Amino acid sequence: MTASAAIRALRGRLLWFSGDPWTQGEAAHHYVADGLLVIENGLVKTAGDTRSLLATLPADAEIIDHRPHLIMPGFIDAHIHMPQTQVVASYGAQLMDWLNRYTFVEEQKLAQQGHAEKLAAFCLDELLANGTTTAAVYGSVHRQSAEAFFRESHRRNTRMIAGKVMMDRNAPEALTDTAESGYRDSSDLIARWHGKGRQLYAITPRFAITSTPEQLAAAGRLAAEHPDCHIQTHIDENRAEIAFARELYPEAADYADIYRRFGLLGPKSLMGHCIHMTHNEWRAFAETGAVAVFCPTSNLFLGSGLFDWAHARQRGVKVAVATDIGGGTSYSMLRTMAEAYKVLQLQGQSLSAFAALHAITLGNAQALGLDPWIGSFEPGREADVVVLDTGATRAMAHRLETARDLAEELFVLVTLGDDRNVVATYVAGERVVRGG
Amino acid sequence: MTASAAIRALRGRLLWFSGDPWTQGEAAHHYVADGLLVIENGLVKTAGDTRSLLATLPADAEIIDHRPHLIMPGFIDAHIHMPQTQVVASYGAQLMDWLNRYTFVEEQKLAQQGHAEKLAAFCLDELLANGTTTAAVYGSVHRQSAEAFFRESHRRNTRMIAGKVMMDRNAPEALTDTAESGYRDSSDLIARWHGKGRQLYAITPRFAITSTPEQLAAAGRLAAEHPDCHIQTHIDENRAEIAFARELYPEAADYADIYRRFGLLGPKSLMGHCIHMTHNEWRAFAETGAVAVFCPTSNLFLGSGLFDWAHARQRGVKVAVATDIGGGTSYSMLRTMAEAYKVLQLQGQSLSAFAALHAITLGNAQALGLDPWIGSFEPGREADVVVLDTGATRAMAHRLETARDLAEELFVLVTLGDDRNVVATYVAGERVVRGG
Repeated sequence: MTASAAIRALRGRLLWFSGDPWTQGEAAHHYVADGLLVIENGLVKTAGDTRSLLATLPADAEIIDHRPHLIMPGFIDAHIHMPQTQVVASYGAQLMDWLNRYTFVEEQKLAQQGHAEKLAAFCLDELLANGTTTAAVYGSVHRQSAEAFFRESHRRNTRMIAGKVMMDRNAPEALTDTAESGYRDSSDLIARWHGKGRQLYAITPRFAITSTPEQLAAAGRLAAEHPDCHIQTHIDENRAEIAFARELYPEAADYADIYRRFGLLGPKSLMGHCIHMTHNEWRAFAETGAVAVFCPTSNLFLGSGLFDWAHARQRGVKVAVATDIGGGTSYSMLRTMAEAYKVLQLQGQSLSAFAALHAITLGNAQALGLDPWIGSFEPGREADVVVLDTGATRAMAHRLETARDLAEELFVLVTLGDDRNVVATYVAGERVVRGG
Repeated sequence: MTASAAIRALRGRLLWFSGDPWTQGEAAHHYVADGLLVIENGLVKTAGDTRSLLATLPADAEIIDHRPHLIMPGFIDAHIHMPQTQVVASYGAQLMDWLNRYTFVEEQKLAQQGHAEKLAAFCLDELLANGTTTAAVYGSVHRQSAEAFFRESHRRNTRMIAGKVMMDRNAPEALTDTAESGYRDSSDLIARWHGKGRQLYAITPRFAITSTPEQLAAAGRLAAEHPDCHIQTHIDENRAEIAFARELYPEAADYADIYRRFGLLGPKSLMGHCIHMTHNEWRAFAETGAVAVFCPTSNLFLGSGLFDWAHARQRGVKVAVATDIGGGTSYSMLRTMAEAYKVLQLQGQSLSAFAALHAITLGNAQALGLDPWIGSFEPGREADVVVLDTGATRAMAHRLETARDLAEELFVLVTLGDDRNVVATYVAGERVVRGG
C-alpha cells in the first residue's frame, strides 16, 4: 500500500451540509460531536461517528486527532482578483475611479517577469491560510497571469477556477488585448488547463465597459464552444458603471441584456455584485440560471450598496458569496459572512450561522455547479477540509464561555472569526496549513 | 533617582495630532520618521527627532527601540459595555429584542460574587491588547460592577471613565434600581472614585426607556452637583426605540428634548448612536455641546442604520467614535474605523487614514474633554502609548510592498488592522502589553 493509497482519518467535531438551512432548517446540516472523516486516495470515503467507524479502519490507518476542533469542508470563494492582492485597502474611491487610480496601475505589473508567479503563490498561500480551498479567480489581461496561477494551483493540487481577463477598451493600452487575441489566448489556456488535474477555466471578460461588442461576441463564442467552462464577469455594482455600460450598449434593454445577447448569461455565469438590479434583470437571471455573486466587504468598502439576498431568493436566483479581493478587504470567508450579516441586517434581513456556513461550503459549491466534487463530506467528494478552533482568540474564548448550543458557537465563529481560527487546511486529503 | 523618576524614551516612528485633518489637512499631524518619545514620571517630557534629542538624555535613560514600528498615543474608545463582553455576536436581533434576549440575561450575572471582577479584568486586558488606553465604560445596574471596574483600572493606573447604569423600569426586576438608590449609589461611587488617581465617573442612565422621569431627574441632579463628571447614555439608535421613548415622554418635543429637560444634555454628555436625528435634535446638540458617539460595528451588526458624520460636522456637533461592545463586534479601534469608513462610503462620504487615526486619539480626547491629559504627545500629557506594526499579518506585509507614502501605509493599517498590529501598549509610561 503506497502512502497516497493509505487511509487517513481526521477526528473532531464534523460539520457539513447536505441541504439548505433556509428551506430545511436543522435538517440541512450534519453534526457529529465526535466524528471521523475517513479519507482514501484524497477522497472522502465516509464521515460519521467515531465509535462506529473506528473499528472499520485498517490497522495502518493514520488518525489525526483534531479534537475539540471543528472539521468542515474547505471554504469556497466565488470571486477574487489575483492581481489585486496589493490593491486591497486603497483609499477613498468608488468603483470607476478606484479601477483607474489603483487597480489598473497594479495590474500592469503582471507583465513583469516573475510577478504573476509571485502573486499566484501569495494568493494561494493566503486562501489556504484562511481555509479556502476553491476560488473563482480573475487573472489580469496577461495570458501568463492565468498560466502562472494554474501552474501553481496544479502543483498544489487545489481545485481552482481561473481565467485571463479579456479587456479591449477603456483601460490603459498596456492592459488591453483584442477581440481576437483575447479569444485565442483564452482558447489556448482552456486547452492547456481546463480539466487538467483539478483546474477549471473561467471565460473572463472583465465587464461590458472594458470589452467591445466584438470582444463580448468572441467571449460568447468561447462559451458556446466550451459549455463546461465557467464565465465570470461584473454587473450592476455601481450606478456610474451601469450608466456607462448602458451608454456603450444602447441597443441592450438593460445591463444583463448586454451579456445575454452575447450568450454570456447562463448557469455557468458567475456575475459579480448584482446590487442595483432591475425587475427584468432579476428575471433574466432566474430564466438563465445565472449566479449572483454577493461580495459584502467589497460592496461596503467601495460604497457600492447593499445586496438584496432575500429578493434573490424570492426570485429564484442562485447566490454565491465571495471576498472580491482587492475591492474586498478580507481573504476570510468567515469575515466575509460577518459583513454579509451586517449588509442584510441593514435591510431587515437576517443570516443564521448555519446559513452562513452553508453558503461558503455546499451553497457555493452548488452555485458553481461543483457540488458533485466539493463542498460536503458525502462519500466520493474531494477531501478539501478546514479545521477550525472556534475559541482561537481571547475575545472568542471569553465569549464562548456563555454559548448555550452549537448555533450560538457557530455564530460567534462567523461573527468574530478570521484566519486565526484556521488550525489546519487539507487539500485532497493532504495537510497544507498548520495554524493555530 | 528612583525607577519611576527615571527617564524612559521610546524610539520609533512617532505619529500624533495637534489639529484636525478635516480642517487643517497635513498640518494637523506630526510625523517623525526616527523619533524619540521621552517619558518622565509617566508623562510625556518631549517628543521629537532622535538626532536632536538623544544628546539631551541623561546617561541612565532607558531607551526602548521600537523601530521600525509606529508609536502613537493610546487609542480611546468612547462607548463600551463591560457586562456585554459575553454578549458580543449574539444572533439575529435588532436593538430592543437584542437587549431583552441577550443583554439583560447576561447583565444579571453581575450580581454573582466575583463576576464583575472577572469581566473588569477581561475588559481591561482586551482594551489594552487592542491599544486602547482610555474608554468610557458602562457597568451594569449593580453598584459593584463600577466598583470592580474602577478598582481594577486604578490598580493598573489606566485613565478610565465608568459608571454604574441607572435603570428603574422596562428591564428585569433583578436589573433595576430606583430613582433614589440609583442616585445614592452613583453619588457614593463619585465620592469614592471620581478623580481618584486616573479614574473618572460618568453618570449613566442607560436610556430614556429604562428610566422613569424621577430617575432622569435624579440623574440631572447628579449632573448639576458634579459638573465635572461625564454623562453617558443612548439616543436615536433604532426606530422602535425612538417610538417607545417618545411614547414614554409625550411632553418632550423629541428624544433629545427628553434628556435636555432633565439637564442631561451638555458638553460632558456622551450620547451613543445618534443615527436617526431630527433637525431640531442636531440643533440641540450643537447648542449644548453634547457629543454624538458613532459606533459603526454596532450600528451595522444591529442593523441600526448609518451615522451621518458629514452632517454632524456641518452642524457643528462634536463626534466621538466607539466600539460599543457588545452591540459592536470588535474591541479594535482600527477595525472600528475600517467599518466607519464603510458606513461613510455607503453615504458617499470618505474618511482618510489621518482623519481615522485622529478620531481615535486626539479627536476622542477632545470630544471627551480630556485632551489636556491624553490623546497626543504634547509635553505634560500622560504617556499612554500604542506601538503598531503596520505589516503584522502576511496580507498586510504583502500589501505594503506597494505603499507609496505614509498616508497609504496608514490606510492599510486602518483598513486591515486589528489587535495583531499592537506590538506594545504603555500606560503612563509603563509597558503593559507585549504583543507582536
